[in-house]
Amino acid sequence: MPAATMRALRKVRPEAGAQIERVEIPRIGPGDALVRVRAASICGTDLHIFKWDPWSASRLKPPVTFGHEFCGTVEQVGAGVEGVAPGDFVSAEMHLNCGHCRQCRLGQPHICKNLKIIGIDQDGCFAEFVRIPAGNLWKIDPAIPEHYAAILDPLGNAVHTVLAGEIAGQTVAVTGCGPIGCMGIAVAKACGCSTVFGIEVNPHRLALAKTFGADYALNPKQENAVAKVLEATDGCGVDVLLEMSGNPAAIHDGFRMLRAGGRASLLGIPSQPVTFDLVADIIFKGATVQGIFGRRMYETWLQATALLKSGRLNLEPLFKERMALEQFQEAFALLERGEAGKILFYPNEDTGLRS
Amino acid sequence: MPAATMRALRKVRPEAGAQIERVEIPRIGPGDALVRVRAASICGTDLHIFKWDPWSASRLKPPVTFGHEFCGTVEQVGAGVEGVAPGDFVSAEMHLNCGHCRQCRLGQPHICKNLKIIGIDQDGCFAEFVRIPAGNLWKIDPAIPEHYAAILDPLGNAVHTVLAGEIAGQTVAVTGCGPIGCMGIAVAKACGCSTVFGIEVNPHRLALAKTFGADYALNPKQENAVAKVLEATDGCGVDVLLEMSGNPAAIHDGFRMLRAGGRASLLGIPSQPVTFDLVADIIFKGATVQGIFGRRMYETWLQATALLKSGRLNLEPLFKERMALEQFQEAFALLERGEAGKILFYPNEDTGLRS
Amino acid sequence: MPAATMRALRKVRPEAGAQIERVEIPRIGPGDALVRVRAASICGTDLHIFKWDPWSASRLKPPVTFGHEFCGTVEQVGAGVEGVAPGDFVSAEMHLNCGHCRQCRLGQPHICKNLKIIGIDQDGCFAEFVRIPAGNLWKIDPAIPEHYAAILDPLGNAVHTVLAGEIAGQTVAVTGCGPIGCMGIAVAKACGCSTVFGIEVNPHRLALAKTFGADYALNPKQENAVAKVLEATDGCGVDVLLEMSGNPAAIHDGFRMLRAGGRASLLGIPSQPVTFDLVADIIFKGATVQGIFGRRMYETWLQATALLKSGRLNLEPLFKERMALEQFQEAFALLERGEAGKILFYPNEDTGLRS
Amino acid sequence: MPAATMRALRKVRPEAGAQIERVEIPRIGPGDALVRVRAASICGTDLHIFKWDPWSASRLKPPVTFGHEFCGTVEQVGAGVEGVAPGDFVSAEMHLNCGHCRQCRLGQPHICKNLKIIGIDQDGCFAEFVRIPAGNLWKIDPAIPEHYAAILDPLGNAVHTVLAGEIAGQTVAVTGCGPIGCMGIAVAKACGCSTVFGIEVNPHRLALAKTFGADYALNPKQENAVAKVLEATDGCGVDVLLEMSGNPAAIHDGFRMLRAGGRASLLGIPSQPVTFDLVADIIFKGATVQGIFGRRMYETWLQATALLKSGRLNLEPLFKERMALEQFQEAFALLERGEAGKILFYPNEDTGLRS
Repeated sequence: MPAATMRALRKVRPEAGAQIERVEIPRIGPGDALVRVRAASICGTDLHIFKWDPWSASRLKPPVTFGHEFCGTVEQVGAGVEGVAPGDFVSAEMHLNCGHCRQCRLGQPHICKNLKIIGIDQDGCFAEFVRIPAGNLWKIDPAIPEHYAAILDPLGNAVHTVLAGEIAGQTVAVTGCGPIGCMGIAVAKACGCSTVFGIEVNPHRLALAKTFGADYALNPKQENAVAKVLEATDGCGVDVLLEMSGNPAAIHDGFRMLRAGGRASLLGIPSQPVTFDLVADIIFKGATVQGIFGRRMYETWLQATALLKSGRLNLEPLFKERMALEQFQEAFALLERGEAGKILFYPNEDTGLRS
Repeated sequence: MPAATMRALRKVRPEAGAQIERVEIPRIGPGDALVRVRAASICGTDLHIFKWDPWSASRLKPPVTFGHEFCGTVEQVGAGVEGVAPGDFVSAEMHLNCGHCRQCRLGQPHICKNLKIIGIDQDGCFAEFVRIPAGNLWKIDPAIPEHYAAILDPLGNAVHTVLAGEIAGQTVAVTGCGPIGCMGIAVAKACGCSTVFGIEVNPHRLALAKTFGADYALNPKQENAVAKVLEATDGCGVDVLLEMSGNPAAIHDGFRMLRAGGRASLLGIPSQPVTFDLVADIIFKGATVQGIFGRRMYETWLQATALLKSGRLNLEPLFKERMALEQFQEAFALLERGEAGKILFYPNEDTGLRS
Repeated sequence: MPAATMRALRKVRPEAGAQIERVEIPRIGPGDALVRVRAASICGTDLHIFKWDPWSASRLKPPVTFGHEFCGTVEQVGAGVEGVAPGDFVSAEMHLNCGHCRQCRLGQPHICKNLKIIGIDQDGCFAEFVRIPAGNLWKIDPAIPEHYAAILDPLGNAVHTVLAGEIAGQTVAVTGCGPIGCMGIAVAKACGCSTVFGIEVNPHRLALAKTFGADYALNPKQENAVAKVLEATDGCGVDVLLEMSGNPAAIHDGFRMLRAGGRASLLGIPSQPVTFDLVADIIFKGATVQGIFGRRMYETWLQATALLKSGRLNLEPLFKERMALEQFQEAFALLERGEAGKILFYPNEDTGLRS
Repeated sequence: MPAATMRALRKVRPEAGAQIERVEIPRIGPGDALVRVRAASICGTDLHIFKWDPWSASRLKPPVTFGHEFCGTVEQVGAGVEGVAPGDFVSAEMHLNCGHCRQCRLGQPHICKNLKIIGIDQDGCFAEFVRIPAGNLWKIDPAIPEHYAAILDPLGNAVHTVLAGEIAGQTVAVTGCGPIGCMGIAVAKACGCSTVFGIEVNPHRLALAKTFGADYALNPKQENAVAKVLEATDGCGVDVLLEMSGNPAAIHDGFRMLRAGGRASLLGIPSQPVTFDLVADIIFKGATVQGIFGRRMYETWLQATALLKSGRLNLEPLFKERMALEQFQEAFALLERGEAGKILFYPNEDTGLRS
């Protein structure tokens, strides 16, 4: 039985910032599990919440503990739980679907009409413990190290995006080479794609894209990336666009790089409307455009696990920063500068920086 | 052997208008066929050419005979032609693919990089005879009447759009109920779709949509079409959006009507860039957007033929206007008013109006 | 609160036969619903159970109430049930999946590794009441009549088989024209298929196939059905084979009728191993063969509902026999003679035969 | 202009054996190319032809030069040839499709109804020169070495089989680990598959399977391969079966290893009918079975080229035997013993064995 209270990083008031509070350990009901958090990772969404951007202000109801990327150990399970037991090493799908809307009935629970997200709509994992419906837990194969297990959620975004269509033998442009873009490059390479073009304005990230396997690393501020891609593909363009930036200029460039009949999978979140030359970019091209949200439940988790187990995904360059929960101000500042990899918290450990 | 000259409706100079000229009957080479035109139909593209809009001015090289929707009888075949012979009743795919670009090699010749179009890039079918590569001919099943055979090209656009994804049991919104939109409604119904919402601002066309099977005919100028569709679908939205208008407001409405996980197939050609709320309309929704161009070669032709043969497509309400080639001024004026169905020319007949 | 006991048709001992017993009305737990049965239908599987064939003997653990096709009214719901309430008119998916095997995790719960079936592995619907997990209930659209609602399970088998691949514009052979075969013909027609060949040795069923829309009704005992199909398809064969017979000779014929690149969807259950000329029938042909089991949960249910609502499925010729539960001996005898349609029981009504 | 005659390995009479003859160099017509053969490889089919098995006797019309796997240099092109020129380094798709049957019209030319094969139905590549329709040539990327270019045809079989469905993250069983089976393992691994089980009775080949990346190499003569696979997959079975043996026992085992909902892609050619437990192996399992023939034209060629260029396919262990055309007796004897890799001939070189 866990102790009665725990430390948690919380949005307490509807304004920028956050604070560590001591709160009650969640009580679990039938079908639930209580998980002791081993490592948690910061998402770009957490930065939005910290900064209290308009989306956060419209969605969150403080006080709430945030954080939705993690791994941990099952501490307790509620009545009726099968297939998972105390002591199991787990991560979790933090998107909770309703089970009865049209999308849920059609096998698309990841875009459930009544979706709730742990760490946004209810208390999340930047805490010593987190409550999760047992059906959303994902048991971790022992071959997968703890720090990889902590980022299965964003890795799943990358896997979902890459594997939303054919990838073997395909040429690929990745616009936006932050952590998910870099994971996308690694996943595409591991799945047999052909030439990869990494497109990114941040030189630090562009270098990272190379490390993760990009054959070309193009900075649109320094060269005509569209022209380069067309030249390198015999004027044809790439088979697949993986849009990871949310940046309107990058999106435009991406579509101009895409070959007729190609696939554009959009994961990056633009903060404003985007204007398209629909005729040239999509219609006459016979292109297919896919909105990508979350992870397929649980096809994506199986795929990500299999790729990690195979040893073909080396994500080590992403893991430079390991911090105590109390260092959250420093962590968000680092993240905002665009130079962080996946920053990890260890809420159940005394020490701060780890290696 | 045909007579040495023939009548043809031609764009003679780079300016608005057209004229009937007497020109040489085309000479055919190896692999070609010469077809005597029985009935030809006017496409919206022909109106753009007639009016010499910016697209036409950038693409056409006058003098050229226009027209690309037709049926006729094979008059002659060139050396090496197999599978088609003089006397055969045919229509034709007027998009000519190169056979060696990446799309052609991948089974996507309809979006060939080096595509040429008969009636745009070379002499078309608004004439007594037209020259076509024999591989592009489509032999017409004798069960299909002449006036239907003349519009297999635009019917193919509708079939391509509807059958670009699942349709049986799906709810459908059709934005834009001109001739292709109405054919799209008929095809979707014949293929087992569920409720169809026809969306159109022109009352004449909206009434036509009803005739073709729309369960709801909504005029966004008179009511909140998005709200109506959501209400009629339990707040869920439609499974499939068939965009046939090219109108930015209709496109916006269409995406707001689309359910999460839905498919949007875009055929209508906007004349200007379109601004999207990518996040709400596509990304968070997990939507799939498809640009639709031409007809799959020749899957679409087989599908359209099968649907026509089955008798489940009643397209008669589209056929009101039958004219002599010399009535082209009247025909284009009628088309521009947005009240015409599929106007038919009969270049090899003396008389004008037929019934 | 329902009365304490009810009538049920049960397999009491591990031997041929069945009997009506008075048993306790099922008690429901959290997540369950109790449904008052309005109409129940007999499946071929029920006949196997009645006759106690080797499969039944190996699977059932008497005493058990059988029956798994029905519709009814929700009487009670257990704790935690959402989205369904007493008074709702429902049918149900009687296949219960575990939720945590690989297939369940991959969105294929209909082939769950730990599948249990109500009416086989636990008490079914040939009774006044039946207990069903609420998540397996399917609310019936009020536009659907009671007798159609009672056969959504076998109609779902037909819909699942037909829509397991493309059907619009496709030529189709249906081998085996019992009730599910006939429903398959009706569904394929409603979804825009081209020519349908019904293949069946029972003249009564062959006539029924015609009624349901078969363009050709071929009796392989009287003519060379393979030759007829090839002749009618220009020597090409059909695009789609829907195998509904389980008969080895019909299966062989079916594959010889299938065109290269075609799809064979197998629903019929052979009672013995079947020998294939794999090279000619599948490999050199590049054919795709699909095993079809149950119904996709719940895509198939949505599709079946939409087709019924559209009014394009006329299944009336299947409904000739309406009986009291007590007439079960007569019902099974009729079924065995191969001349019955879908026999309906009305366990909560005093009278026997209805109209 | 090439010399008037050349050496060719030919089937001269309808009986076992073959002989080297001096014959005229092929004359090319419009659309053709004449290719000087650099390296040719022996296929299992060539062994059947050499031994004059029943299939060969029913299909070939001697005298004919056999051989259909090769690379070479374009010597001459006929009238009207575009996109390829003398001096180009090429391989070729030796399956010639008609262009007008239903399969050709549907984008499935690899299963053309009127297919002809160079090296079987007309003179092939075991000669100094071979005539090929220019549209069937495949220009070789200069990054691909000659000996790899010579086996693009059988590599294409492997690629077609592996990529006929999802492969990333999937568990795979390969039954039959001859050269194509081993290439299948390498391709599956390069495309991100999970665990691979190689199943083979020949110890030499089983060792080769390990070399190519099989995680498990199982000999059904020495252990219960089905039980091993089930044990290693938590009782679930593999997601994908790649059947490369044509052996009935291996096919049976393969299906028993396949999970419910899995894919079985069949390339191996059984020499006799195969008996299936259709219910357990396919129907109740909801399995998908695909016949695989040839290579998709030309999607497979693009995929194979991309995989080779990426450097992720190490096929070197297949290349041990390089021989003069005159050593054909020795070559076929070696092949029959089941220990050869891909034996290469060099018809335009004086010397025999190379390294």
